[in-house]
Amino acid sequence: MAAADGGVAVASRLLTADNVTTLLDSTEAFLFDCDGVIWKGETLIEGVPETLKMLRSRGKKIVFVTNNSTKSRRQYAKKFQTLGLSVSEEEIFCSSFAAAMYLKSKNFPPEKKVYVIGEEGILEELELAGFTGLGGPDDANKGVQLKPKFLFEHDKNVGAVVVGLDQYINYYKLQYGTLCIRENPGCLFIATNRDAVGHMTDLQEWPGAGCMVAAICGSTQKEPIVVGKPSTFMMEFLLERFQIDTSKMCMVGDRLDTDIMFGQNAGCKTLLVLSGVTSLSILHDSANNIHPDFYTSKVSDFLEFNKG
Amino acid sequence: MAAADGGVAVASRLLTADNVTTLLDSTEAFLFDCDGVIWKGETLIEGVPETLKMLRSRGKKIVFVTNNSTKSRRQYAKKFQTLGLSVSEEEIFCSSFAAAMYLKSKNFPPEKKVYVIGEEGILEELELAGFTGLGGPDDANKGVQLKPKFLFEHDKNVGAVVVGLDQYINYYKLQYGTLCIRENPGCLFIATNRDAVGHMTDLQEWPGAGCMVAAICGSTQKEPIVVGKPSTFMMEFLLERFQIDTSKMCMVGDRLDTDIMFGQNAGCKTLLVLSGVTSLSILHDSANNIHPDFYTSKVSDFLEFNKG
Repeated sequence: MAAADGGVAVASRLLTADNVTTLLDSTEAFLFDCDGVIWKGETLIEGVPETLKMLRSRGKKIVFVTNNSTKSRRQYAKKFQTLGLSVSEEEIFCSSFAAAMYLKSKNFPPEKKVYVIGEEGILEELELAGFTGLGGPDDANKGVQLKPKFLFEHDKNVGAVVVGLDQYINYYKLQYGTLCIRENPGCLFIATNRDAVGHMTDLQEWPGAGCMVAAICGSTQKEPIVVGKPSTFMMEFLLERFQIDTSKMCMVGDRLDTDIMFGQNAGCKTLLVLSGVTSLSILHDSANNIHPDFYTSKVSDFLEFNKG
Repeated sequence: MAAADGGVAVASRLLTADNVTTLLDSTEAFLFDCDGVIWKGETLIEGVPETLKMLRSRGKKIVFVTNNSTKSRRQYAKKFQTLGLSVSEEEIFCSSFAAAMYLKSKNFPPEKKVYVIGEEGILEELELAGFTGLGGPDDANKGVQLKPKFLFEHDKNVGAVVVGLDQYINYYKLQYGTLCIRENPGCLFIATNRDAVGHMTDLQEWPGAGCMVAAICGSTQKEPIVVGKPSTFMMEFLLERFQIDTSKMCMVGDRLDTDIMFGQNAGCKTLLVLSGVTSLSILHDSANNIHPDFYTSKVSDFLEFNKG
């Protein structure tokens, strides 16, 4: 469902007891963002387990689509379990997995290597997909000395640089990634996502993958291939697996420029929850031009409105 | 002298014995970039001392305009001395100095603080200008722990963030600068320059200030005020000091997108030297639309051509 109609933005509708039944009936699959929707940092958002249970009991397909690249699918399944939710790896689409799947979809030669500016999740997904990753946590404590006659060597066999959130970003990694992209012929520059900031802790926001990706754009003067939201790469991959028409999907998220745009780009219905980074005043600000079909305070409103 | 004439780019002319006399006669001040023009890393480029001597003996004003922010004017004068050149601090305009002068020109309140993502030179220039700098080398070894209930505190009294080349860039500094810009009302975001890469060592190029600046653009989604080349801030400042018409100045540099553009933006004559990052094939590439008035292999060609 498009947000614009003949050039005039369609206002988002508040989710109510009246329209929630229509939304539930017309949706076969719910795609959930995680941070700000399912949890905040390490804390589950109120009413999530009951809501997921209700949706599953009504036969809805459930998928989690997250831009956070620090974890692999396996690590995410574990996090869900720790929070008391039973979610299988197959239901999780994180951007670390998307990066590995992108390389697979492009028949990236397994004898080539992948340099990672990012964390453990990307390296684990690369390995599971049969690729050799370099960098990431291994290069966290490496420094450089800008001295005469010092030559920084990089692996000429690196055919892709994957950049995601990296809380151990340093000049060594920036130079390594930059050299590969500038000097290795045909080297791909892949961004897991470009989120400016994210709730890396429950109390505040921190620079997101968009910060590290921009740094590499700045040094290489190249633009990356983005595999996370709002790019539709994950959706294409998801559609291949689930064979559900996107008009029968509803993307539920807390960010306009990633989640809602992703849903709209793919032709899904979209529901903004106000339990994360977007407030009602941001949604209604005249500068905002991304309008979800529906908005509500939190996912458990599904239950609330569906009771009566 | 403009590079374009009625929309048609004017081809750059090779410096020759014929036109060098006209250039010398019509120029009162020569503005030199340093890296790739005067030196490469720690090595003086051949013929520089004799060329500067000849220009001085002919009464030409000499100024050094560099985007490198890691040193202060004092530290630059020392570097010139080490290389055997007698240059006074007054002749040096580095981007660390420009950042401090920009704050002064905007009457930045001295009771406010300045957070620095960059190196010693910026902090020294801030101090000399009467400002209080924070961060920089002091935060080189600081880390963060993304744990529940952890709150990263920043100084609410920071009124400007200055970003330059920082070989000790880390997530702590990125979060600090981001918080100041996003949360301190009216906080300025100043970039010393946006060079993508630079010859931090003689053997290869490394990510430049453009890398760190882009990182902060990525996390704040704001654009900086640039005080280094090609911005004309330094030129305005320089003109106030020297009272020479820009048409009687010649900017000599090795970079098209900073040096030559800076000269052209200011209305100077421009001379590209091929002793740095720009090759003849880059200059003549059809994708290049920055055309200096003249080009030559190195500054000492002034001497060579002026002999006969």
